[in-house]
Amino acid sequence: MQNFFYSIPTKIAFGKGSVEQLPDFVKEFGTKVLIVYGGGSIKKIGLYDTVIKLLDNAGIYHTELSGVEPNPRHTTVNKGAEIAKKEGIDVVLPIGGGSTIDCAKAIAAATFYDGDAWDLVEDNSLVTDALPIISILTLSATGSEMDYFSVISNMELNEKKGLDSYLLYPKYSILDPEYTYSVSKYQTASGTADIMNHIMEVYFNGVEDTYMQERIMEGLLKTCAHFGPIACENPTDYNARANLMWTASWAINGFIACGKLGPWPCHAMEHQLSAYYDVTHGHGLAIITPVWMEYILSDKTVDMFANYAHGVFDIPWEDDKYAMAKKAIECTKNMFEEMGLSLNLRSIGIEEDSKFVEMAEKAVAAGTDKCYIPLLVDDVVEIYRRCL
Amino acid sequence: MQNFFYSIPTKIAFGKGSVEQLPDFVKEFGTKVLIVYGGGSIKKIGLYDTVIKLLDNAGIYHTELSGVEPNPRHTTVNKGAEIAKKEGIDVVLPIGGGSTIDCAKAIAAATFYDGDAWDLVEDNSLVTDALPIISILTLSATGSEMDYFSVISNMELNEKKGLDSYLLYPKYSILDPEYTYSVSKYQTASGTADIMNHIMEVYFNGVEDTYMQERIMEGLLKTCAHFGPIACENPTDYNARANLMWTASWAINGFIACGKLGPWPCHAMEHQLSAYYDVTHGHGLAIITPVWMEYILSDKTVDMFANYAHGVFDIPWEDDKYAMAKKAIECTKNMFEEMGLSLNLRSIGIEEDSKFVEMAEKAVAAGTDKCYIPLLVDDVVEIYRRCL
Repeated sequence: MQNFFYSIPTKIAFGKGSVEQLPDFVKEFGTKVLIVYGGGSIKKIGLYDTVIKLLDNAGIYHTELSGVEPNPRHTTVNKGAEIAKKEGIDVVLPIGGGSTIDCAKAIAAATFYDGDAWDLVEDNSLVTDALPIISILTLSATGSEMDYFSVISNMELNEKKGLDSYLLYPKYSILDPEYTYSVSKYQTASGTADIMNHIMEVYFNGVEDTYMQERIMEGLLKTCAHFGPIACENPTDYNARANLMWTASWAINGFIACGKLGPWPCHAMEHQLSAYYDVTHGHGLAIITPVWMEYILSDKTVDMFANYAHGVFDIPWEDDKYAMAKKAIECTKNMFEEMGLSLNLRSIGIEEDSKFVEMAEKAVAAGTDKCYIPLLVDDVVEIYRRCL
Repeated sequence: MQNFFYSIPTKIAFGKGSVEQLPDFVKEFGTKVLIVYGGGSIKKIGLYDTVIKLLDNAGIYHTELSGVEPNPRHTTVNKGAEIAKKEGIDVVLPIGGGSTIDCAKAIAAATFYDGDAWDLVEDNSLVTDALPIISILTLSATGSEMDYFSVISNMELNEKKGLDSYLLYPKYSILDPEYTYSVSKYQTASGTADIMNHIMEVYFNGVEDTYMQERIMEGLLKTCAHFGPIACENPTDYNARANLMWTASWAINGFIACGKLGPWPCHAMEHQLSAYYDVTHGHGLAIITPVWMEYILSDKTVDMFANYAHGVFDIPWEDDKYAMAKKAIECTKNMFEEMGLSLNLRSIGIEEDSKFVEMAEKAVAAGTDKCYIPLLVDDVVEIYRRCL
């Protein structure tokens, strides 16, 4: 096991009606709130009204920034920081999925910076302080509710980069599975694929002597494989939504990677798909993952795949580990397809490979060459091709 | 899944040599340290000297309280609080196992209380503030390094009670598996049984719709079943010690019980064994657990046992769930015996049942009647008898 430093200070209020605790959480830090959200979905499900009523009844001042983009932009962050500075905001309150929380994190940091928020993205060490963040989650996928990462886009520079600081853990996150009932089947499926890949990136990274972490990861993956299809089939199944929601947070809050750090190949490859073709991140991962698994299956990895087969899909042990591995990859595909995700690029309109070399170069620059099974440009191009 | 509130703020520095970070952790809170420890074991393994040197080199003042009892007494807590008050201590630094950390927690709270520390134990709401605690762990078992519980004894009143407060989470805990190399085979086995029972108490509590938590618990139990015997056989196996150490923390820091709260029957029964016969806690649990499992096996519990059988001991699914359950109970016994623990009370000198009714009454008062399978006095007496 590698040495590690563990720190996850975010507090979670989980379950039906947990939003009622919001005013108490806010009052711990002050009385002036900046609500941050995207489109109208939080109004449709009544959550917006609930929050406003709770804040009003508690005498908490609120203003808002709406229209946060699916890939939140630094210009939106600047807008939020400006409001926060001008109004003397005490707490940033994102309501939504990962994009909204990411944007709120950047606002929280930019409020203490004189200048363009993009500077902070370019140089995370410029983050010296941050407003407290309290998030209300409405989508199970990115884990932003319980980590210190955010991803911000700069459309002028055509760049998308991370803004990470220990100061950016939400103080509290409110996780009510009922707020995810209205998430569409497609977004539920993509979100589940995203959660699973967050775990797989760590599980298959080749770091040894992490027996405990691997068994926990198998449990988390099993939970996704079990409840993903159920939530797609029956969006108001509380049990499925609750298990997925809590699993999403633990897939990427840093816990499972303790003692098992390493680079993430599938994300590096998928980010190019999203950047070049605007593919939904989780769907892109669902397409890439099984192809990547087949590509890296070898004597060096077959034991990991056998563990994965047995631990996640309950495939019985047999002497032929390759047979176990292949069955597990089949199960992975079947599970994604059961949720309604197509598993090739043609199905989402990508029919030719002219950009693959350029994309592969960027994926390698993002670290695929440093993975347990290093992927160079030719490897990544081949994986993209097999995804067609 | 039940609603829950999650909060585990303790930061962990894990791995070989992580004690080197101690001065930085201390300096975050001040420059005056009260070292708390038990007997001479931390001197024997060189840890005491290492700590003194690190503190001295960093110009950190230190004084100490040694001789903390295996069941730390309120009189010792009073002594520690007196030193802390007199010397203006900034940080309490327990070095040892659960007893030492528990004692340090009580000292941290009692420093802000004018009066006998036992008052705080009698009424936890009197805890209004606490000194920061930084712990260095040398025994994998109780989980005190990452939770807010402590257990304090009053020998005058013959009582042993909990002192719990959110203020008592250690700020940092230093977990270096090498410091557990010198733990004896017997203590390693008892500690492993203790860790496993912490998980089982939650696993078998009958709260439904906690699929994710159950799979994680199976992973943690599997880790204990795998590495407990290895650590007993080869005490300097880093991998075994590391996996057990990290598992011990997660068995009882509150995470697995999120959404799955309920009373703990085996602990309620074992505490009487320890109180009346001075049985080593983990060994007492190892004796009670399989007997309790057999006792509560019924149509109401058999599915839980089948999950346990498959998830922990890899027993193949079969239609006869009772057969699976019985095999799993056999595996549990075998695993404890493999670590060298005898599984009956006669083997540890308890040969007659004259105190069992009195003990059972106390166990019931501690909540065995409120468990998923309620255990009344007759039930508990019968379980004790079967343990003979």
